[in-house]
Amino acid sequence: MQNIFTKLSSDPGCNARTGYIDLPHGRVQTPVFMPVGTNATVKAVSKDSLETIGFTIILANTYHLFLRPGHELIRQAGGLHGFTGWKGNFLTDSGGFQVFSLAPFRKVHDNGVKFQSHIDGSKHELSPELAVDVQMAFGSDVFMQLDVCTEFGATEKQSLKALELTTAWAKRSKDRWENTRDGFDGKLFGIVQGNFYRDLRKRSAAEISELDLPGIAIGGLSVGESFPVFEEYLAFTASLLPTDKPRYVMGIGTPDYMLAAVEHGVDMFDCVYPTRTARNGLLFTADGPIAIKHAKHASDFSAVDAECPCAVCKQYTRAYLRHLYKCDEILFSMLASYHNLAFLHALMHGIRNSIEAGRFLEYKRSFLSRYQGKKEGDTV
Amino acid sequence: MQNIFTKLSSDPGCNARTGYIDLPHGRVQTPVFMPVGTNATVKAVSKDSLETIGFTIILANTYHLFLRPGHELIRQAGGLHGFTGWKGNFLTDSGGFQVFSLAPFRKVHDNGVKFQSHIDGSKHELSPELAVDVQMAFGSDVFMQLDVCTEFGATEKQSLKALELTTAWAKRSKDRWENTRDGFDGKLFGIVQGNFYRDLRKRSAAEISELDLPGIAIGGLSVGESFPVFEEYLAFTASLLPTDKPRYVMGIGTPDYMLAAVEHGVDMFDCVYPTRTARNGLLFTADGPIAIKHAKHASDFSAVDAECPCAVCKQYTRAYLRHLYKCDEILFSMLASYHNLAFLHALMHGIRNSIEAGRFLEYKRSFLSRYQGKKEGDTV
Repeated sequence: MQNIFTKLSSDPGCNARTGYIDLPHGRVQTPVFMPVGTNATVKAVSKDSLETIGFTIILANTYHLFLRPGHELIRQAGGLHGFTGWKGNFLTDSGGFQVFSLAPFRKVHDNGVKFQSHIDGSKHELSPELAVDVQMAFGSDVFMQLDVCTEFGATEKQSLKALELTTAWAKRSKDRWENTRDGFDGKLFGIVQGNFYRDLRKRSAAEISELDLPGIAIGGLSVGESFPVFEEYLAFTASLLPTDKPRYVMGIGTPDYMLAAVEHGVDMFDCVYPTRTARNGLLFTADGPIAIKHAKHASDFSAVDAECPCAVCKQYTRAYLRHLYKCDEILFSMLASYHNLAFLHALMHGIRNSIEAGRFLEYKRSFLSRYQGKKEGDTV
Repeated sequence: MQNIFTKLSSDPGCNARTGYIDLPHGRVQTPVFMPVGTNATVKAVSKDSLETIGFTIILANTYHLFLRPGHELIRQAGGLHGFTGWKGNFLTDSGGFQVFSLAPFRKVHDNGVKFQSHIDGSKHELSPELAVDVQMAFGSDVFMQLDVCTEFGATEKQSLKALELTTAWAKRSKDRWENTRDGFDGKLFGIVQGNFYRDLRKRSAAEISELDLPGIAIGGLSVGESFPVFEEYLAFTASLLPTDKPRYVMGIGTPDYMLAAVEHGVDMFDCVYPTRTARNGLLFTADGPIAIKHAKHASDFSAVDAECPCAVCKQYTRAYLRHLYKCDEILFSMLASYHNLAFLHALMHGIRNSIEAGRFLEYKRSFLSRYQGKKEGDTV
């Protein structure tokens, strides 16, 4: 398999590494945080703003777009790039995770999963092959195999069954991709499952690695377990993966989780957290998140984060943002989402620099001690 | 009184004219459409986007900002300019119109109006002097006297009473402004009332003109009357006003009303119409407005308006906008509002050019025949 990942540097104190991934719509510096654009738009942020912040890859959700507007329409539009105008890379998930978390009904069988739409109750079926077809219609730069995720607390037997299906579906996904790719240049990633059983993680990692796909995701984490358990299984699973492929942990976006993932050698993450919390009034700062609704911000004419170089912090005050929030103004969601994404983008930049300087653990300690230490007690 | 209006050209076929108004935050070409930013933001459109489109003046609503966040906070922030970062001009209304249309309770007396907040039911009072003080705290470039507006169907006696109060309050507003202005360079506009009684309109126009304020608004129109009645009283009232001051008609923003106003010599208008209808899915095109939700746009990969040079029409398709609308995505409101404002801005540009070329009536006829003639039957 063609190698898409190039390692640039490793931190001597841990498994953190920098590098880049070459994808059809450009090079992506890693470690990278990827904003989520569920319905083919990052909520309240234009593609131009994403480009201004510096993002080179964003997500879209196959489950949502498969149901609405449908992959045939997106294919007609010239894929997600033609449909949305975004010139960077798209990563799409397989739809499996949302089938499990959003659909009011679903049934897994050997050939795929039957489910009902959460929008209108209509019935659908997704197979490993269809998940590939749909994502190829999207023109995704990175696309994921359909997998079976288990919850925290699943039995070993349930977890084994999910793992076996996931491996079988990975093979079927690879076959479908190789037999139909034609000019399509997107990269299929496999997914390691195994719940919180070391033997199963080991087996899944070996089986997925064996397929020699362009990249590998660590699935089945952040599904209800505590942070120490998350970190233990993240570190363990990452250590089992080949070093010459990008490693992706799906669905994490808080600084502590991302820093832990980077420490253990993960290159890619995504999460709705920065944009969802933004819309709810939580804004990131180096001293921890602030809840903009609090009265103490009413006449605070300073920036959200005085050290943040983003366009929002350069132009707007906490007082104005609080006013917009209190008035339910759309501009609040626009500015807050922009800032939170820019903050995480800057964090990834700081992380990469610290790894290159061989001081990642010091950077992590120092960032978290400020971010978590000086809590204002703000919650939303 | 210092003259702020310079006439550049008149159309030989009607009373349409072009010119410019010099205001503290820059020159404004007329005729001009002014977007409305009720809560100190145009809904779903950033100040940077407004500047990109080319707007040089926007509105904010005194009633809303007086109640939340309050004029003292805005004064502390450096006025509306410091609070919002908008570098162009602000026009603020006096709050009177919203007191009449939004407050659940109000009582007019000789010294002003008592009312309850529509937000929390709290009790407030607005006098002509306080309306001036509040707008001076805002640092408004153009600010309006407190007036008393009557509805279509008001009796002559009611209309006379409202007119007399409006004139008395205009004088008191002027006194307050002249006695407290200090370094403040904003311009007070008076308002002509008189309902749909020619004698009253005549008397009000004479009394307000007599005060020699920097500009004059024609109030009490678009309050429930038919279009022919609107146009008749607009034309009649405008003909009574001095030619060397800007004339402003409040609350109109549909192309047909604006074109009628321009024809009769009006220079300024404002309305929430383009942004409100945008959020509801109605998009302006040269061939009339379209309701983006209609199924016929689902796989239409052309621009909203192929002739529109705005950033939205250059970058996005009807199919993508419809998808965003169906998904309730904030980006839809952002793009739709931007387009509708850019469309009206371009219309004003076309209007000014046609007046300079002495062909306004031809332009109006041609624009309306396309805009109104080829209705797609779209409604929202």
